[in-house]
Order: sequence, then C-alpha cells, then structure tokens
Amino acid sequence: MSLTIKVQFISPTHLNFRNKPSCFFTAYDSRIRPKPIYHSNPLTTTSHKPRRMQGPVRSPSVIKSSLIEPDGGVVVDLVVPESERGAKTVEAESLPKVRLTKIDVEWVHVICEGWASPLKGFMREDEYLQSLHFNSLRMKDGSFVNMSLPIVLAIDDATKENIGSSSNVGLVGPDGDLIAILSSIEIYKHNKEERIARTWGTTAPGLPYVEEVIASAGNWLIGGDLEVLKPIKYNDGLDHYRLSPKQLRKEFDRRNADAVFAFQLRNPVHNGHALLMNDTRRRLLEMGFKNPILLLHPLGGFTKADDVPLDVRMEQHSKVLEDGVLDPETTIVSIFPSPMHYAGPTEVQWHAKARINAGANFYIVGRDPAGMGHPTEKRDLYDPDHGKKVLSMAPGLEKLNILPFRVAAYDTVAKKMAFFDPSRAKDFLFISGTKMRTYARTGENPPDGFMCPGGWKVLVKYYESLQAEEATKQAAVVSS
Amino acid sequence: MSLTIKVQFISPTHLNFRNKPSCFFTAYDSRIRPKPIYHSNPLTTTSHKPRRMQGPVRSPSVIKSSLIEPDGGVVVDLVVPESERGAKTVEAESLPKVRLTKIDVEWVHVICEGWASPLKGFMREDEYLQSLHFNSLRMKDGSFVNMSLPIVLAIDDATKENIGSSSNVGLVGPDGDLIAILSSIEIYKHNKEERIARTWGTTAPGLPYVEEVIASAGNWLIGGDLEVLKPIKYNDGLDHYRLSPKQLRKEFDRRNADAVFAFQLRNPVHNGHALLMNDTRRRLLEMGFKNPILLLHPLGGFTKADDVPLDVRMEQHSKVLEDGVLDPETTIVSIFPSPMHYAGPTEVQWHAKARINAGANFYIVGRDPAGMGHPTEKRDLYDPDHGKKVLSMAPGLEKLNILPFRVAAYDTVAKKMAFFDPSRAKDFLFISGTKMRTYARTGENPPDGFMCPGGWKVLVKYYESLQAEEATKQAAVVSS
Repeated sequence: MSLTIKVQFISPTHLNFRNKPSCFFTAYDSRIRPKPIYHSNPLTTTSHKPRRMQGPVRSPSVIKSSLIEPDGGVVVDLVVPESERGAKTVEAESLPKVRLTKIDVEWVHVICEGWASPLKGFMREDEYLQSLHFNSLRMKDGSFVNMSLPIVLAIDDATKENIGSSSNVGLVGPDGDLIAILSSIEIYKHNKEERIARTWGTTAPGLPYVEEVIASAGNWLIGGDLEVLKPIKYNDGLDHYRLSPKQLRKEFDRRNADAVFAFQLRNPVHNGHALLMNDTRRRLLEMGFKNPILLLHPLGGFTKADDVPLDVRMEQHSKVLEDGVLDPETTIVSIFPSPMHYAGPTEVQWHAKARINAGANFYIVGRDPAGMGHPTEKRDLYDPDHGKKVLSMAPGLEKLNILPFRVAAYDTVAKKMAFFDPSRAKDFLFISGTKMRTYARTGENPPDGFMCPGGWKVLVKYYESLQAEEATKQAAVVSS
Repeated sequence: MSLTIKVQFISPTHLNFRNKPSCFFTAYDSRIRPKPIYHSNPLTTTSHKPRRMQGPVRSPSVIKSSLIEPDGGVVVDLVVPESERGAKTVEAESLPKVRLTKIDVEWVHVICEGWASPLKGFMREDEYLQSLHFNSLRMKDGSFVNMSLPIVLAIDDATKENIGSSSNVGLVGPDGDLIAILSSIEIYKHNKEERIARTWGTTAPGLPYVEEVIASAGNWLIGGDLEVLKPIKYNDGLDHYRLSPKQLRKEFDRRNADAVFAFQLRNPVHNGHALLMNDTRRRLLEMGFKNPILLLHPLGGFTKADDVPLDVRMEQHSKVLEDGVLDPETTIVSIFPSPMHYAGPTEVQWHAKARINAGANFYIVGRDPAGMGHPTEKRDLYDPDHGKKVLSMAPGLEKLNILPFRVAAYDTVAKKMAFFDPSRAKDFLFISGTKMRTYARTGENPPDGFMCPGGWKVLVKYYESLQAEEATKQAAVVSS
C-alpha cells in the first residue's frame, strides 16, 4: 500500500480515501456511504468549496495545520471573561442555588470548554429527548451533530421548590464555592428508568455510573445556558495536563499538524497500544500526511472502582514517553475531563464527537469500546463489534475518519507485542487487564516486551500500595 | 383565523405555514426549525424546484392531487408478479425453511406493501443498529429516513443450524403455507434485553408485545431481502379494508386530494374524535386546501388483550360513517396492518412514517400516543407530552406536518363533545376507555352525544358477548 497523494493546504477530511487500507474507514458503512462530505478549513480558507486534488501536487515546503471544523462551527467557551467575573459573581450570589456533586462539576468542566459543542449548557428537555432517542441534535440549518449521552443536571424536590419561578440559578460546588450560573432554565421530569434503559440498553443493577450518579439523583432535571465564573481546576497536580479543546487546537496548529489521531483510554498503555499508535502514524504518513500528531487522551473524570486511578495512569503514560515507546515530538498527552458512563456503543460516540471538537479528524476505536461485563450475567454487556459499527453509522460523525483497532497480543516467538496473526494463533498470548493486575500484585514480571519497564514499575508500585492498604484494613478489622 | 391563501397545483408540503394556527406545527421545534424543505410532486412535476406562492392566486377550476413523496422516493412493492409466482414457489420449496408466527406474517405484510419503505426486507444488523440507536436509516445520498422500530425476524438455534450456509430461506406461515423468500440473508445475535430497553425505555415485565413476541423468540435475528409469493390475505371478511400504500395513493389521486390527514387509532371512534377530525378538515380548508381527505386508519395487527378487537372496531367505524358523524365523501377508512408495540414516543414515529408512505402529509397526534400504563408501577409508562415532542423532532419526518390533538371532552352544558375549555373545566366530563367499557357492560347509556347511537350499539353488543362468554366459562368451572 503506497499512495502518492501529496497534501498541500488541504484539510485531510477532503481526502476521499478510496484507496485507503482496509483497516481505515470513514464514518459510514460501505453499503450506505453517501457522497463524501467536504468541510472547508476555517484556518486556511473562507470558501465553503473544498479544493479538490487534481492528481499529485508538489510536496509543500511548509506544512500548515488544517484542523477539522468543530461541531456547530465554533468551539463553545463558557468561561466568563476575567473583566466580568466580579459582576457575574455578585449576580450568582443573589440567585437560588443548586448544589453540584463532584461528577456534576466534571460535566460543567466538559460543557464550558466546548467538548460538547454546540451544547451551551445542561440539556433542556428538547435536547435531552433528541439525545435519548436519536443520539444527535438537529441544528438550525437542518444538519445533525452527534450527541449520544444526555448531559443533564438532576435536582431534588426541595431544590426545585427553592428555585420557584426564578429563571436563573447559581451552581455551587461540593465544597460550597460558587462555580457557575445557569440561566433561562427549564425544569423537567427525570425519568430515571427510561434514561437508564435508553442509554445503557439495560436496567440491570450494578452499572457504575447509575449507582454512583443516577440512583441517588433527584427526580427533576434542570437545563439552561451555562456561564462558568472561572476555569475549573482540580489542584491535584495534574491540571497542566488538562488542555481545553481550544488549547489543544492551538497546540496542533503550533506543531503544524496536518492530521490528528485520537486515542481514548482509561487503562495503562502497554506495548500493544503503542504498536497500534505507531502503526497508525506510519499509515497516515503513507497516505500522504506529512505531520500526523497523536492525541493520547486518557479519560480523567469518574471511573469505576477497579480501574487504575488517574494519577497512576498519568505517571505510567509519562514513563511510556520517557522510555521512548511513543515519540514525544509527535504525541500530545492530555486529560479528557469527561466522566465515564460504561455505555458501550452509545458512549463511544460521545468519546469520538468530543475529540472532533478538540481537533482530531482520526479516531481509533477498539473492540468493545466503553464496554464492560454485564453487571448480573456472565457475558459482555455489549456485542464487542457494535461499538465500531454504531460509530461508523452515527449521525453527525460523517467528517470523522474511524480507525478500527487492530488486535495486538504477545507474540511468544518474536517475544514482543505484535498484531495478532490468526494463521499462528497458538503463538500469541492475550494478557487481559485481570491477568496484568495479577502479575503486578504477585510481583511476577509480565513477559518481556509487554510494557516498557518504567511504566510497569509504576503499576507494580500502585498494586503494592493497594495490597498494603488492604492489609492495614484487615488488621484494623481483626483488632477492632 | 382566516387565511386567504389559495393553492393551485401546489403540493401542500410547499406551504410555509408561517401563519398557521397554533395547533399546527411541522416536524420541528420552533427553536430548531431548519430551512423549509420542499419536495417536488412526483405526480404533477418532474422539476425539483417547487413553485412558490406569489401572493394570492386564482382559485383553480380543477383540483389535482399532489401527494407527499414516499420515503426513499418509491413505494416498495415486494409481491412477486403473477407471471413469476410458479418459478419462485419452486425455488422457495427447495430452500431451508423458517416458520413464522402470526405476528411475523403481519410484518411480512407491512414490509411487502411498502409501509416501511425504503426497507426491502427484515432488517440486517446495520439497519437494526441504526433503528435501535438513531431511530432512522441513512440513505445513500446522506439523507435520513425515519425508522424507529426494529422490524426483525427472530429464529432459534435449531433453525439457524438448519439454515447452515444457505444464503436464502423460505418463509412458512403458521399453517404451513409457503409465504415468501428471504434472500442474501444475514444472521446476527438477538440481544433481547438491549432491544427491549432501547425500544421501550424499560425492561419491566408485562409489556404486551414483549410477552407475546419477544420473550419466546429465538436468540438470533435473520435479515435479508423479501419477496412475497402472493398478496397477504386474512380471509376474515375485512380484507377489502386492507388497502396498500399504493392503493391508498391511487384512491387519494382518484379523489383529487390536495391534502391527506391521517388519524391512527386502535379504539372505537367517539364524537370527540369526530369533532377533532372534522375540525382539522375545516382548518385545512381555511388554509387554502380545496379537497383535504381524511385517512381514518385503525391499526389491524396485534393489540393487547383488553383492546377492542379489530372486527368490532371496523363495524363501529362503519356505523360512524353511516350515521353521518364523518363524511364518507371525504373519508377513507382502511386498515393499517402493523402490529402494536405500545412503545410510546418510539412507536409514534413508526405510525407517522408509515402514513407518509401511504400518501398522508398531515398526521394527527394525541396525548400519550402509543402509550399505556407502566406495567408494574402506578403511572403512565411515558410522559404524555413526549410522543408529540419526539415526533416533532424526529429525523426523517421533516416533510410531515404534525397536528397536535386538541383535547375533547363531554360538555355537560352543551350536552355534546366539545374541545375542552379550561376556563370552565367543571362543565367537562372526561370519559375514559375504562368508563366507556363500564357503561357498555352495565347496559347504562353514556351521556347523550358521546357517541353516535349506531356505533354505541356495536360496542354494547361486543361487551355483552364478552360477559356471556365469561359467564359460560365460570359455569364450566363450577360444573367441572
């Protein structure tokens, strides 16, 4: 596979990819592929007509960034400008208050930085219903943007009563600090059963986000326009990793990226992941891109209890870059502030859509993305193939190029992680998350070449600390 | 409210309705209304540019029909032409067989006549997933058609094994008669829990369609292209009421309809319904339409046990026309062959979409369409307002004009059914289905003017027969 196409000041989304390798596909099934949709590059042209490629063109001497257009055309930014903060804070103080949970604040963060563009606040009922039934929102011009998860704020009866007929409210963080204003509000019923069934495709007990967030939430949802009084910070030593979509776009621009490929993860990076990411870059170069940049984008919001915590993951990721497994020159590591739903095919759309807003035009999708085991039955909650199928057909994701994950496993002959070759299946060892945890817990080393040594040490340290913690707890139970 | 617009050879869908009465709205929320979409009239013009209204035009001397375009541009017709039936039957006989239930046959009927156009068979997995997640299917040109219910055929393990690697199967009715061929088949997993959760927004036990159809269905779905060996007939004395979308379009054409407004129902027609239908016609005339035709369109497939059976309803409806409550000249009574899901906002989209294919460009939607009580909780399963909200925002229904149902009740002062006037709420009596059944059972007459006497007699006779049946059963229990 070698393409001679040269790209010059042309957005990668203009590529037709008719000769793309079989592992690449755009957000359509081949049987239902519409005419290619061309998007103008807001950074290099004001025309809406793309420049078509007229055969090979000369290699450009200067690569210029040409980022994918955000949903709705503009990255939403809802942080009040510094000059207006004083007045807005006074206004917020005078309003009825809504108390937020830690996860509500994560959503405030997500919305205010424009990850959910064009959404400008917590969903009103029209948006909620469209998200729930259609996984998309209709824009004024009749087009659709993807919006698969309801991004909503729940309140209880007492809060609703306290709001009364006020059309604006102040949002207060878990520590009592005034965070934001929600204006032109709409309060509507929170039918939890229906929300859960339509979002997760099950109502079985034990869904992590449901248990953590929805079960105890109030019976009302409150939507409105959000204004955040100052940028959301966590003061956990990781804020420098939390780049907004605007900041990421600026950085891609600064690096003259002509393709951005995003890798969503909530687990440590092993050499199989690295192989995949490096291989993707190689293929993008082969396709004619001159400067593809990897967005290594771990999810930073709520995750379930047995996932590796964010700080450990960030330390592990930085070791992976230090050890040279991924190239720091062509990789940006940043935190995606969204909480995790574990809602499989519904959620993977959100993960992809948010990365469009951050400037990514290629999205790597794996087996069973955002999936988990069924909470009450011995099976995967979702068909492992549905995630990429649903993603490839989702309304509003047409401009995104979907890159299906190639399965990597430990090749016991080559003694390294390699793409699985079914013709010699017996040579490959699949190391699951559970298996990895067992290695780390027992102090046993995984096969050589599974993960870079620096990264592995971080995990061993974490699991040792967990064991120590458990031992202390057990001792406390015994002595009490 | 009086509009002076005169319509001449212009499709009603070309009307902008900016001056429409507040009870009319097109399939958009006002806040998200896109540019109006114009559809050419396949019957009167080949141009795709509509003729715009240039101020009042002269009243036409001849009204010409101008029906809404079916989804996908053509009404699907999958009945094998008579000349090919012999050969096709021989072919079908040689294939592995799939045995259909009564309700599967109803779906074969629905698909083969084009109610679900552009669907050409039971859904393959791509279509199933789009229906489940997006309530719509993407067409080759990138546009969407609405498709909110999964129209699928389930098979069990033994049938799957028997099919083996055959790419075509024969479909056999419950009585063993060969009905159809399904070709280029695809077999995929039937995750019942996910299907139920995403279709109904609940997995509570007691959903009629789930209990009747899904609970006992196999663990696989089989999709493919359908060819039906001969038109589906029920031989129940009602087949003459079962007009296909093509036949209905021909009839609307013959009557020179310039607007077709559809009324979906699965209950007897009382004078409140009649008031609404007659009032809708009056409003359409006021808007400038010259010959609006009512499609009174009772659902004829599976309904739950306590709904009034189809034959009784059809007899009642014909009395309503005989008694002159509805005008036979401007009304077509026909049976919609679909089974009922009772899936509220998800199903009402199907009800509306199917009527587009039959030529209706106006659709009347009531409170809680296709809704029912929650099977295990004391509340409506769906928010009664969600049906019309979801319908008004649904992808693929942009060309349909949605007419929200005005609430009619018995006006005890005027002694007739009238639109509810909240300023004198105490004068109105709401007669529920349960109340109506109680009247009929006890032999008590409902208030004068609630239903035409001929129609009421049909119901009384039905409920008396039910009581007689119950008495016989009880006597049998006692004597045994």
